[in-house]
Amino acid sequence: MELSKIYEPIQEDLARIEDRLRAVSAVDSPYLSELLDYSLKSNGKRIRPILTLLAGKFYDYNLDSLLQMATAVEIMHTATLVHDDAIDESLVRRGRPTVYQLWGEDKAVLLGDYLFAEAGALTADTQNLRAIKLFADTLKAISSGELNQAFNAFNLEQSRLQYFQRVSKKTAALFVMATESGAALSQAPEESIRILVEYGYNIGIAFQIVDDILDFIGTEEELGKPVGSDLAQGILTLPAMLLLERYPEDNPVEKLFKNQDKQKNVALAMELIRNSSITQECYKVASDYNAKACRNLNLLPDNAARQVLVDLADYIINRRG
Amino acid sequence: MELSKIYEPIQEDLARIEDRLRAVSAVDSPYLSELLDYSLKSNGKRIRPILTLLAGKFYDYNLDSLLQMATAVEIMHTATLVHDDAIDESLVRRGRPTVYQLWGEDKAVLLGDYLFAEAGALTADTQNLRAIKLFADTLKAISSGELNQAFNAFNLEQSRLQYFQRVSKKTAALFVMATESGAALSQAPEESIRILVEYGYNIGIAFQIVDDILDFIGTEEELGKPVGSDLAQGILTLPAMLLLERYPEDNPVEKLFKNQDKQKNVALAMELIRNSSITQECYKVASDYNAKACRNLNLLPDNAARQVLVDLADYIINRRG
Repeated sequence: MELSKIYEPIQEDLARIEDRLRAVSAVDSPYLSELLDYSLKSNGKRIRPILTLLAGKFYDYNLDSLLQMATAVEIMHTATLVHDDAIDESLVRRGRPTVYQLWGEDKAVLLGDYLFAEAGALTADTQNLRAIKLFADTLKAISSGELNQAFNAFNLEQSRLQYFQRVSKKTAALFVMATESGAALSQAPEESIRILVEYGYNIGIAFQIVDDILDFIGTEEELGKPVGSDLAQGILTLPAMLLLERYPEDNPVEKLFKNQDKQKNVALAMELIRNSSITQECYKVASDYNAKACRNLNLLPDNAARQVLVDLADYIINRRG
Repeated sequence: MELSKIYEPIQEDLARIEDRLRAVSAVDSPYLSELLDYSLKSNGKRIRPILTLLAGKFYDYNLDSLLQMATAVEIMHTATLVHDDAIDESLVRRGRPTVYQLWGEDKAVLLGDYLFAEAGALTADTQNLRAIKLFADTLKAISSGELNQAFNAFNLEQSRLQYFQRVSKKTAALFVMATESGAALSQAPEESIRILVEYGYNIGIAFQIVDDILDFIGTEEELGKPVGSDLAQGILTLPAMLLLERYPEDNPVEKLFKNQDKQKNVALAMELIRNSSITQECYKVASDYNAKACRNLNLLPDNAARQVLVDLADYIINRRG
């Protein structure tokens, strides 16, 4: 199902989130305003803030608080992307030049800091201490996951356990924050919060696995950024791990991690993965997480939000960009 | 007065802050633990966390909360330094190699993010919504002040008003957060909070002016980092502004901002400033802020903390590093 179709029942909420994101750019400094406008007015999918809204729709919610939190979640996500692009020296994202490319590393780092602070301020405005603590703990998880990735760049000796631990920190933590904060803001009973946390965690892992697959089998047009970039940066993802296991000798991943003929070996690894069952195997793993995400959703009240959660989980697996 | 002498009445509190800073490094990941240990176990002066403790000692305080907040303040300060060094590509700070030099830009950015989050988590643990909001707003102010500085690098057309606005954001905001959070955590009446905010704001400005003077007249040994670095980075500080006013034609600041013989003109500007009354003029401005900082302190209850606040203000003006 297309994302626009999935979002149909919640179009008004989505428009309200976009309004609030636009409002963040209204600051005195024209420089900062331009940076905020550019980074927040991207053609992002807005999945994470939508999750906050959906997770908050099952019990007694205050729409203003939910929108505040949803906006905070998207801004935090944007902050991590702005910093990631600066660190990775990425020039293109979502089909546009990155803040790093247009304004340079120093502005990208400072803009990211501002965005983290703005997200924190919006979260603080909810006055919900659980959401506030969750916000800080999530940023700790994301940055420690990214640090783990940076320290393990070009390291061939990584286990699948390490991969999943890293993914749960660098990606799933923010999905959990998205659903848990929405649920907590709507006075959901602890058992329901648990179900929505389980959903967020598992689609978060599935989302990252699919991202890692698409980096091998997608096109630059679909992804809005160059393909093969994980390997080029020395990031060992699930498809590359499976390729290493399959060809323990004479493997292009090993060669390029040992700094041999990078470009040629990235291309070779991509070709081998595309033409093997590795993609399928990885999709199987992602689908299992997806199934786990949804298995208890039927214990929540039956409403429109619940169906959108199911549709979004499907979308996450089937997306091409 | 020496800092160690000033700190004598609060040695136990200082030791407790050091203990808490050490505890932050106790994380599972050995890489992260090493980075945290290195960045937090510096020979910093710990002025900002001490301000939180002092500001919290006038009314009904819970020592644990105050220590929590003081630790958060120092960690936030550390985070901004780690990011600043990455942005400025600074190799040495406080007489030691920077995180940027030892681990590279990517780790420095991610460590800074983690430190911001840790500071946020500790602030959240105080469960004081005013302190939490203050934390987020302060980080917004600091990063927007730094962005203003980055966008105005090598810009000769800056007014003193712009300088003071920038300083109030990039430096004084954190001093305000330090005193205001301590006061708020101790149930201080609004009038007393106002006095402590006024103190924090004004010594914050004085602190930065002295920093800017020392960058011209200090030594690398005293400062623990290279001198003349502001000018080399195109940052127009108060002493350089006065020099520009004094020699409107044939000015080394103008020349080096126009990219002419950088090294020679930095040295020339330093010599001109050292051998003029500019230093004295700048110290006069700083002293006026200092006086403003302390003018209402006598309206607070008379206790040991009050005297330390007065001594610290003096120290800030008279320090050599």
